Amino acid sequence: MFCWLNRLYRGLSSPTGRTTQLIWGSLSRSLVLSSRRRIPEFSSFVARTNTCGELRSSHLGQEVTLFGWIQYRRQNTFLVLRDFHGLIQLVIPQDEKMPTGEIEIKVKTAELLNSCKKLPFEIKDFVKKTEALRLQYRYLDLRSFQMQYNLRLRSQMVMKMREYLCNLHGFVDIETPTLFKKTPGGAKEFVVPSREPGKFYSLPQSPQQFKQLLMVGGLDRYFQVARCYRDEGSRPDRQPEFTQIDIEMSFVDQTGIQSLIEGLLQYSWPRDKDPVVVPFPSMTFAEALATYGTDKPDTRFGMKIVDISDVFRNTEVRFLQDVLSKPKGTVKAIRIPEGAKYLKRKDIESIRKVAADHFNQEVLPVFLKASRHWNSPVAEFILEKQSLELIRLMELQEEDVILLTAGEHRKACSLLGKLRLECADLLEARGVVLRDPALFSFLWVVDFPLFLPKEENPGELESAHHPFTAPHPSDIQLLYTEPEKVRSQHYDLVLNGSEIGGGSIRIHDAELQRYILATLLKEDVKLLSHLLQALDYGAPPHGGIALGLDRLICLVTGAPSIRDVIAFPKSFRGYDLMSNAPDSIPPEELKPYHIRVSWPADSEAEKSSLDHPHHPES
Amino acid sequence: MFCWLNRLYRGLSSPTGRTTQLIWGSLSRSLVLSSRRRIPEFSSFVARTNTCGELRSSHLGQEVTLFGWIQYRRQNTFLVLRDFHGLIQLVIPQDEKMPTGEIEIKVKTAELLNSCKKLPFEIKDFVKKTEALRLQYRYLDLRSFQMQYNLRLRSQMVMKMREYLCNLHGFVDIETPTLFKKTPGGAKEFVVPSREPGKFYSLPQSPQQFKQLLMVGGLDRYFQVARCYRDEGSRPDRQPEFTQIDIEMSFVDQTGIQSLIEGLLQYSWPRDKDPVVVPFPSMTFAEALATYGTDKPDTRFGMKIVDISDVFRNTEVRFLQDVLSKPKGTVKAIRIPEGAKYLKRKDIESIRKVAADHFNQEVLPVFLKASRHWNSPVAEFILEKQSLELIRLMELQEEDVILLTAGEHRKACSLLGKLRLECADLLEARGVVLRDPALFSFLWVVDFPLFLPKEENPGELESAHHPFTAPHPSDIQLLYTEPEKVRSQHYDLVLNGSEIGGGSIRIHDAELQRYILATLLKEDVKLLSHLLQALDYGAPPHGGIALGLDRLICLVTGAPSIRDVIAFPKSFRGYDLMSNAPDSIPPEELKPYHIRVSWPADSEAEKSSLDHPHHPES
Repeated sequence: MFCWLNRLYRGLSSPTGRTTQLIWGSLSRSLVLSSRRRIPEFSSFVARTNTCGELRSSHLGQEVTLFGWIQYRRQNTFLVLRDFHGLIQLVIPQDEKMPTGEIEIKVKTAELLNSCKKLPFEIKDFVKKTEALRLQYRYLDLRSFQMQYNLRLRSQMVMKMREYLCNLHGFVDIETPTLFKKTPGGAKEFVVPSREPGKFYSLPQSPQQFKQLLMVGGLDRYFQVARCYRDEGSRPDRQPEFTQIDIEMSFVDQTGIQSLIEGLLQYSWPRDKDPVVVPFPSMTFAEALATYGTDKPDTRFGMKIVDISDVFRNTEVRFLQDVLSKPKGTVKAIRIPEGAKYLKRKDIESIRKVAADHFNQEVLPVFLKASRHWNSPVAEFILEKQSLELIRLMELQEEDVILLTAGEHRKACSLLGKLRLECADLLEARGVVLRDPALFSFLWVVDFPLFLPKEENPGELESAHHPFTAPHPSDIQLLYTEPEKVRSQHYDLVLNGSEIGGGSIRIHDAELQRYILATLLKEDVKLLSHLLQALDYGAPPHGGIALGLDRLICLVTGAPSIRDVIAFPKSFRGYDLMSNAPDSIPPEELKPYHIRVSWPADSEAEKSSLDHPHHPES
Repeated sequence: MFCWLNRLYRGLSSPTGRTTQLIWGSLSRSLVLSSRRRIPEFSSFVARTNTCGELRSSHLGQEVTLFGWIQYRRQNTFLVLRDFHGLIQLVIPQDEKMPTGEIEIKVKTAELLNSCKKLPFEIKDFVKKTEALRLQYRYLDLRSFQMQYNLRLRSQMVMKMREYLCNLHGFVDIETPTLFKKTPGGAKEFVVPSREPGKFYSLPQSPQQFKQLLMVGGLDRYFQVARCYRDEGSRPDRQPEFTQIDIEMSFVDQTGIQSLIEGLLQYSWPRDKDPVVVPFPSMTFAEALATYGTDKPDTRFGMKIVDISDVFRNTEVRFLQDVLSKPKGTVKAIRIPEGAKYLKRKDIESIRKVAADHFNQEVLPVFLKASRHWNSPVAEFILEKQSLELIRLMELQEEDVILLTAGEHRKACSLLGKLRLECADLLEARGVVLRDPALFSFLWVVDFPLFLPKEENPGELESAHHPFTAPHPSDIQLLYTEPEKVRSQHYDLVLNGSEIGGGSIRIHDAELQRYILATLLKEDVKLLSHLLQALDYGAPPHGGIALGLDRLICLVTGAPSIRDVIAFPKSFRGYDLMSNAPDSIPPEELKPYHIRVSWPADSEAEKSSLDHPHHPES
């Protein structure tokens, strides 16, 4: 039974410790969290005098007024009352029984404020429920300890960030529009029809243009906790709307932004976690690729990629020979510590399958036996000298396994980067502790290329990040000769192998911006004329960054999905399973917007199937 | 000429006071504003050592690095450098000339960071420009003193509100979705097509449903600085997107919410304004209507409506007789102090025209002459006794004018309420000070009716505010007998005659909510099934409020329009004049959303006229 109780008076009595101890135990994390500043007054403006979690033996003898849910009751004598700060035992006085426990409340009057139907699931963390059910009854799921903890921590962390930016460093919190103009090539932008025929707003993916315009407007330290939109259809751990900590500064360089962010995270970091150590290490994009096979390395553990091309210059292994004879051919490997002990035959098979399926590439597993002999299809072709050199270069121990591949540098690195993470998962599944769950390993990745070859037409260039990114000062001349070699002033912030932020120093020179847009990227500059014009009117040098708030909080709380740090998330197909959005709209309500639905040709059957009230997702 | 200067070294020298004094004078308001807390470090993370406004004689002899715009230069010797904290004079050393002034900077090295084309208008407050031009070049307009002041004050005030809610009172800042389901009857909601044929999200007008669901979810003190959307087509002082301070609490009553808001405004109020006095006065809706003819009375001045029906019970004035013989007939008047002195014949004519045009009602002006005789078309029919009674009741002085009307109570009050404001404007245009510009007059308006007769069908009821508003506890029984007489637990907050907030205690009983929705309002409850279901699962009593942030900041800063407190506002037709949004979108980009534009039948010509890049607005 769930119901509301009101007006419970007069604290009293001795030990029933069991219950209250248990509660305080389970809430200790959030208590630690709020202890660093003045504890907020949770009972201001309401009739209650205390929250359920707050009472201690020091309150003995006081009259209190509590509100909460009945957690359970026994023999109409004992009640446990719950709110989101804790639980407390109540005694409805009947005789002079003397219960055990530190404190309990002797009830004077009680009022039932609401009753509760049978719940679709119990609000207990150990009761497993599907995510679809949790999302359908999100307002009940929010009562769980974990969701309360995640959302309260998120609020507190964002508040600390605001204090740091606004109060300590003079940033101005400015709201920018979300009904804007479609960005050229912004294929992932939702459109919003207006009342003028054929005219649409667009929901921007970030306040990028606005924040640069604010710098031109002299609001020289801007930030915003900005709602952003991205329509990617179905993507497992993405949301159609998400939040970023959006920052821009004038007269700043890359080092300045990096120090700002290091300070921001240090200042806002929850007290119940290990403190953030600054400055964060930094690595170039080239080094990240060569060592970790990715631009977002998980630096909590080793198993780095080693280039072993030189070992095999004179090899008799045919496929290594073939690769090394090509101009960009390399041989690379990663070491899996004690892999011989932990990896099973089927693991190795699945690893080789990943390589073949996703990278169209061969991986050779090589086991170093206790006998210091190799166990591998190619073992017989490895010379003694090569073997010793390999052991030295890769610091191999007995029972280690190396995974070896050969191919073009970038491709070989990407493959081994992926296998490194797969093997880490495998080892951890077997009980090896590779990544300390209490460890937060931050890393700056810098010196990205400014341009990449277009996927659909590798002869042309596209921006590696966005067209407003400034080129690296040392590479300016290359813009006019070999633009594909120009490095940018873009920087990414990586935490435990996830990208949690990215930004850049921007172009503030209108001519340079025009050259890059029109000549190198072949974009229609008309669509960005307002921005180009703004740069012409004395734009200051400026740069900024955006942190992905949902992802950051997800990593901080250790939540399995970003949906666990958002109060009302969409499912991975973009549905709100509680209200059933998006939903059909009668044609007459579309009329003011001058749009009509184009039903797919074969869709009469489909159309009727869409009238189902719910779209269950597995 | 505008350009950037970098690396200006070594402070020095004696009086050039004129320039620096002038600057500090003009910036004093924002200085006062930030002095109440630790002054933020505006030069952290960048190469500058000081802002231009910060240097005083105490800095004499120091080396400084400044960044800024060149405000003007003289003979290549003196430069005035500007940023958004002030201005400072620089001397490029040439000989040992001794200039006047308190401090100036002797330049060691200077670097030009960007140049500036001729501006479309000068960034000086006294240079008048049309609003269309200001919006087109918003990034330049933002450099004005007034826009800098407005946006910085807004940021600081919101920050203080967050401190009050989060740090002092335990509120949790929770983001709610803006891609949601269309509200039943939500005709003013923008729609957002999804990738599923015929399915649309909707941009909600407020987080109303979410905040109530959060209460059910046990997040019992919620707030959000929430972006909201309302599509009203063209409305002069409205924006398609706007911001509200959105608050909801569990276990609270009307008094609790009111104390919270009074404390919030007191805590966040700018230091350069007179402090907010609490508690705010409160008035019932009935009283506001009877005394001020509106639900948002401007209580900075008197001129209240007086019911003078009793004076004229036995009148010979025919039209008063007629009205008073009807069951709800009344005679009402307002007194215009010294109206005879300030109002001209054409003013009175325009007042009578307003009454006739907008209210279809007659207004009689009556002048009390110095001779204590009336000057009015009906003067001869007013008996001596009536005349004395009128003078007593309305506290009339010589040279006063009364505006008298007769009719049904509500209609007569509305008319006089409107004329009261018109006359106040007229008097102030003639130099009378009625409303002190430094005065902030807050007022709670309470005890609104829960329902109103439907405009299109007065036999049916609609919610006066929204269907989740709880009925007044004393009127519960009337719900089942005379629902039109039920008062609600809704409250409005009014400041200087503008509604700046509104809220209510909500219905937390599912049965009552169902009865009101289905039986009284005849709504389709299926569309709100998730909310009704949530109330069934032990919803706590709860209530909340939303403050209109744009309007509030507008009143605090004394800005002429809410567009002056928003960084990038839309024009009153909903256009972004800078980027030209909303804009056309190629049909292929609409395809993924399964929509087509329905061009109006007669629109081939129209269509081509829509291709113009700008929509000038007067």
